[in-house]
Amino acid sequence: MLDAFFRPNSVAIIGASRNPSKLGYAVLANLVESKFTGRIYPVNPAGEEILGYVSFPQVADLPEIPDLAVIVIPYQHVPEAVQACGEKGIKAVVVISAGFRETGRAGLELELKVLQIAKQFGMRLIGPNCLGVMDIHHPVNVTFAAGGMPMKGSIAFMSQSGALGTAVLDMSMGNNKHIGFSAFVSLGNKGDVSEIDLMRYWADDPNTKVILAYSEGLPSGQEFMKVAREVSRKKPVIMLKSGVTQSGQKAVSSHTGSLAGAEQAYNAAFYQSGVLRVNNLQTLFDHAVAFAYQPLLKGNRIAIVTNAGGPGILATDALEKANLQLARLENATIKALEEFLPDAASAANPVDVLGDARADRYEFALKHVAADPNVDGMIVILTPQAMTEIDATAHAIGKLTAEIDKPVLGCLMGDHRVQTGIEIMAKFYTVPNYAFPERAAHAFAAMRDYNEARKRDTGEIRKFEVDQDRVRAIFEKVRAENRVSMIEAESREVFAAYGFRMPRSELASTPDEAVRLADEMGYPVVLKIASPDILHKTEVGGVKVNLHNATEVRDAFELMVYRATRYVPGANIWGCLVQEMVPPGLEVLLGMSRDPQFGALVTFGLGGIYVEVLKDVTFRIAPFGETDASTMLREIRAAHLLDGVRGQKPADKDALTDALQRISQLVTDFPEIAELDINPLFVYEKGRGVLALDARIILQARQ
Amino acid sequence: MLDAFFRPNSVAIIGASRNPSKLGYAVLANLVESKFTGRIYPVNPAGEEILGYVSFPQVADLPEIPDLAVIVIPYQHVPEAVQACGEKGIKAVVVISAGFRETGRAGLELELKVLQIAKQFGMRLIGPNCLGVMDIHHPVNVTFAAGGMPMKGSIAFMSQSGALGTAVLDMSMGNNKHIGFSAFVSLGNKGDVSEIDLMRYWADDPNTKVILAYSEGLPSGQEFMKVAREVSRKKPVIMLKSGVTQSGQKAVSSHTGSLAGAEQAYNAAFYQSGVLRVNNLQTLFDHAVAFAYQPLLKGNRIAIVTNAGGPGILATDALEKANLQLARLENATIKALEEFLPDAASAANPVDVLGDARADRYEFALKHVAADPNVDGMIVILTPQAMTEIDATAHAIGKLTAEIDKPVLGCLMGDHRVQTGIEIMAKFYTVPNYAFPERAAHAFAAMRDYNEARKRDTGEIRKFEVDQDRVRAIFEKVRAENRVSMIEAESREVFAAYGFRMPRSELASTPDEAVRLADEMGYPVVLKIASPDILHKTEVGGVKVNLHNATEVRDAFELMVYRATRYVPGANIWGCLVQEMVPPGLEVLLGMSRDPQFGALVTFGLGGIYVEVLKDVTFRIAPFGETDASTMLREIRAAHLLDGVRGQKPADKDALTDALQRISQLVTDFPEIAELDINPLFVYEKGRGVLALDARIILQARQ
Repeated sequence: MLDAFFRPNSVAIIGASRNPSKLGYAVLANLVESKFTGRIYPVNPAGEEILGYVSFPQVADLPEIPDLAVIVIPYQHVPEAVQACGEKGIKAVVVISAGFRETGRAGLELELKVLQIAKQFGMRLIGPNCLGVMDIHHPVNVTFAAGGMPMKGSIAFMSQSGALGTAVLDMSMGNNKHIGFSAFVSLGNKGDVSEIDLMRYWADDPNTKVILAYSEGLPSGQEFMKVAREVSRKKPVIMLKSGVTQSGQKAVSSHTGSLAGAEQAYNAAFYQSGVLRVNNLQTLFDHAVAFAYQPLLKGNRIAIVTNAGGPGILATDALEKANLQLARLENATIKALEEFLPDAASAANPVDVLGDARADRYEFALKHVAADPNVDGMIVILTPQAMTEIDATAHAIGKLTAEIDKPVLGCLMGDHRVQTGIEIMAKFYTVPNYAFPERAAHAFAAMRDYNEARKRDTGEIRKFEVDQDRVRAIFEKVRAENRVSMIEAESREVFAAYGFRMPRSELASTPDEAVRLADEMGYPVVLKIASPDILHKTEVGGVKVNLHNATEVRDAFELMVYRATRYVPGANIWGCLVQEMVPPGLEVLLGMSRDPQFGALVTFGLGGIYVEVLKDVTFRIAPFGETDASTMLREIRAAHLLDGVRGQKPADKDALTDALQRISQLVTDFPEIAELDINPLFVYEKGRGVLALDARIILQARQ
Repeated sequence: MLDAFFRPNSVAIIGASRNPSKLGYAVLANLVESKFTGRIYPVNPAGEEILGYVSFPQVADLPEIPDLAVIVIPYQHVPEAVQACGEKGIKAVVVISAGFRETGRAGLELELKVLQIAKQFGMRLIGPNCLGVMDIHHPVNVTFAAGGMPMKGSIAFMSQSGALGTAVLDMSMGNNKHIGFSAFVSLGNKGDVSEIDLMRYWADDPNTKVILAYSEGLPSGQEFMKVAREVSRKKPVIMLKSGVTQSGQKAVSSHTGSLAGAEQAYNAAFYQSGVLRVNNLQTLFDHAVAFAYQPLLKGNRIAIVTNAGGPGILATDALEKANLQLARLENATIKALEEFLPDAASAANPVDVLGDARADRYEFALKHVAADPNVDGMIVILTPQAMTEIDATAHAIGKLTAEIDKPVLGCLMGDHRVQTGIEIMAKFYTVPNYAFPERAAHAFAAMRDYNEARKRDTGEIRKFEVDQDRVRAIFEKVRAENRVSMIEAESREVFAAYGFRMPRSELASTPDEAVRLADEMGYPVVLKIASPDILHKTEVGGVKVNLHNATEVRDAFELMVYRATRYVPGANIWGCLVQEMVPPGLEVLLGMSRDPQFGALVTFGLGGIYVEVLKDVTFRIAPFGETDASTMLREIRAAHLLDGVRGQKPADKDALTDALQRISQLVTDFPEIAELDINPLFVYEKGRGVLALDARIILQARQ
């Protein structure tokens, strides 16, 4: 329960100082200026009076148990301070002091010690190494951020970087009057309270309509997904996750101790949990204000009203690029517009009210377009021309939004002359403004995405009939032999136990045995080298297809074994697998690798050399259900291949969807699987199923 | 010569009015307020005095021949006015009046009449239907834009949309003090003066460092490219081309046609002529200010100096995504930084001077990083924290830029508190500021692109030994038969004449003839239906490979002809082509389609079904040389396939590059070719050349 951080009735500031250059002063000053209505207790050994408040020498002396304690003292003394808070019975602590995990080994140990103490007293802790906490509605400000409180609004923002926070808060005090906050938390080292806790808390905060996060790495991937999925159903969660690229990651680890997970894992995790991901700060807030101050977008049909053709076209382009629809206005609407607007005007979407349009013309057009049932949202563009009534038009736009339940985004273009108009829209009607039409279009795209994410049912996770014991037995055998990589025969058995069909295949330890098996199966056959030490068979000439008779089989066997021993000296060779030849199918790849952050990351893609060259693959975090599995098939660029091109029959998507879910189940049942892939998996035409031709499994190395 | 528009010594305003609500008043008022130092002649039938200037009843009465005339009268009277200007000897006219081409047929005729008159007097004309013209340095302002002149600077901007112009000019008067203009032209209907003329003029304008254009379509593609290529070598040309989505809807019968659109043509044309394309207004100006106010970027190694980790990571991410390098600082630099900066600071790039950094710390870090030979450009990030000295730091950044010849982009984040700092950088040092680090990174990417575009030598166009007459003869035959599509036998001959190798192939009109040819060639052979009415052979079962003997050939022949007549009733069937079987190679596609704007658009891509599914193709406008041809090979996503993967040998890129240039030559020599493609072209291993397996040519329909 984090209420104590955001709605405290009494706050102790440990390390409060009367020296204005000290953070201990800044925090107290900010708290006082924040018009906080509760009791304030500076704690300071000197016991001096600060800003009119008598300070107490130590926590024990406080006349009551404060709801919240803020610690702003040199790191060496933080443990005692937390201890003292615990003994006093304080349940919530913000540790602003730096000098912990971010400074290296010794710092990390000190931090763990602090957390240990907090835990033992059942306290929640924000920080250490952070800027502090604000609730703009309560109000309370226990940060050392200069510039005081930001504009009040409906955006809750958490930032792993305190400095980024200061910049962002400052934005709302300048010309971005439409940005306003409900609360702000600088997470610092996230010793205890993390993104997960705050998401959960703000989900039920009536003052918060949208949750924003800047993060450099998440604590517990799977739990994050669980919570994010619930929260994002209630209100939008928008995240800027940095450290995406290689040197970006370098910078991360040198910045905080956090370990960045793989890009694909984050994208999959965010998608699966309904979190909207943005890749820069501007977009973060462009999207936030739309969600915070306009009703949700219910469809994808957008109308544009403009007094200039050019910007109208730019908006149209941006909408189409974002796969939004340019709304088709009803004839009645068009008629009404045609009657009122001058001849040169365009009554079709984008509606061009012309450069000499005054407020009344905008008002009329807006009213009719907004009322059109084919319109889900509107972008209103204004360029400051000779006859343009900027302020009056701003009021017209604002009044409109008060009457309808559709999102309206303003785009008063320019800067100097439109400034008052932008402020009018923000102050009186909370209509956000975008300096450029493209940015408004992108905001609508985000609203569309949220709408879809919300409707998306994750579908319950199917449980297939499988033979877990058999798999467990195989893994134990492999472990017993101190191996992590399994030979094909073993992998085959595992996949068979999870319902995968595979070509008939038997291990032959001698040429004669191989010939005997081939005779049984019938020619032609395939021969594959079988050795725990050889993973990429083809590269050592360890695969021969289309062997037509006994001689060919015998020759192939001997050649392969010879080559294997030569290319991989000392390899333990078990012999060769004799396999039936199967008809060719569409080659795809199914795979899994463990992401340190989110766990099992399942891959689907086009097989063969194309997977390497084109990297045409898509990902999901396991476990996932039918919906995700079938969506994966549509996500690869070559998805169309599955529908059958150039006279080929459509592929068996149902079987493929099943296969993906079986993989999901397998890697969930057995966390000891480190990596796995089936490459290729042959997909046959609809109704004919799939066949796993080659499969690999590698187990986690024992700790 | 457009000097008269930008440096006139005397201006006549035809339609000047004393009624403030009239455009004729606005234009005169703007001219007067612009501090224009030359003579001003209002022309107005009433001959009344306006703003202290006596106006003349008609042009003929003017005491001298003005350099420039501006026409602001109802469209019906424009022709007479232009006539009068011509008779007076005026050589430059701006027609602001609307009511021409943009209003339909009658308007178009009126416009053509006006242009005809201008031409006959050898006048240049801007407009009609435009906002007017400004030169901020001269200064002269003959627009009716409200708000007066923008900030003075080095950006020349032309806009097809006048209203967009007003918005953009207004930007420079607000909080974007770093945006400043040298000149502005509203192009209107582009009756005479177009983007091409202005590019050429501004290329030599000493006050202009970068040329910007907002355009909805270009007049003459090939000439645009020629001029743009020259101009972009002198200074950057950045274009925002809108209307991307509605363009390029034409019936197409070949693959290439379906892949190519106006979008691809514009991208290719801009790339080949060194024009930087942006897809939104914000980026247009983000890039412009970097070019206008900072030295060019000479490499791609960027250093970041920041007082906050988070934004540093965001900048790093953005740099990497844009394929820019995070500069590796020299040890000496790192050492120097380590000695001066506090321990917690990061002396490696991104250099983190920490949140409590004052101006002196920035100054020191900047000096050393800027001096590092491994650094080509710098992003300086500042977040407004408690101890940050914003203005002093802004001065430090500015002073630095005065001393070095490397581009420095500011990123003072936030808004309210950093405002003064942003103004200091802009006013005293012309250092542009970006509200977010990502935008600064993108500006550097644009500078890198320009640097490369400038260095890129288009390479002279090779001329291969070819047999034009033979091709001409074939085309004449096809024309004579009133066909536009050619059968394969004909296409083969054309490509052969241009040096393409093809498998042996003969037309057989009867099964017996087919067998005879097959016997000659030796089995196995391929059979293909030959009919001018069947373009996609495979889809009607019109291709059979691997025929081993006479019987198979005879059967295939009869089946094919039967099918063809059945699927394409009334098709004119010539028989079947008998072709030798050739060894398989890497399948690629070469093609060409005609773009209405730029002409021959040549396509290269991965062949087979993948070209349809993955659309992995790249484009060039013909003619092009070696450099472009070989670059195309690297541009497709599957480029790596040409290097040989999974043990395959590298493909014969030289032969492929040749083939592309031969296509370029063919479609340049014969404009009557509407579309062509070779699909597949087999590419063999290095030294083994290429082989065209299937080729198609479609001629332009006769007008």
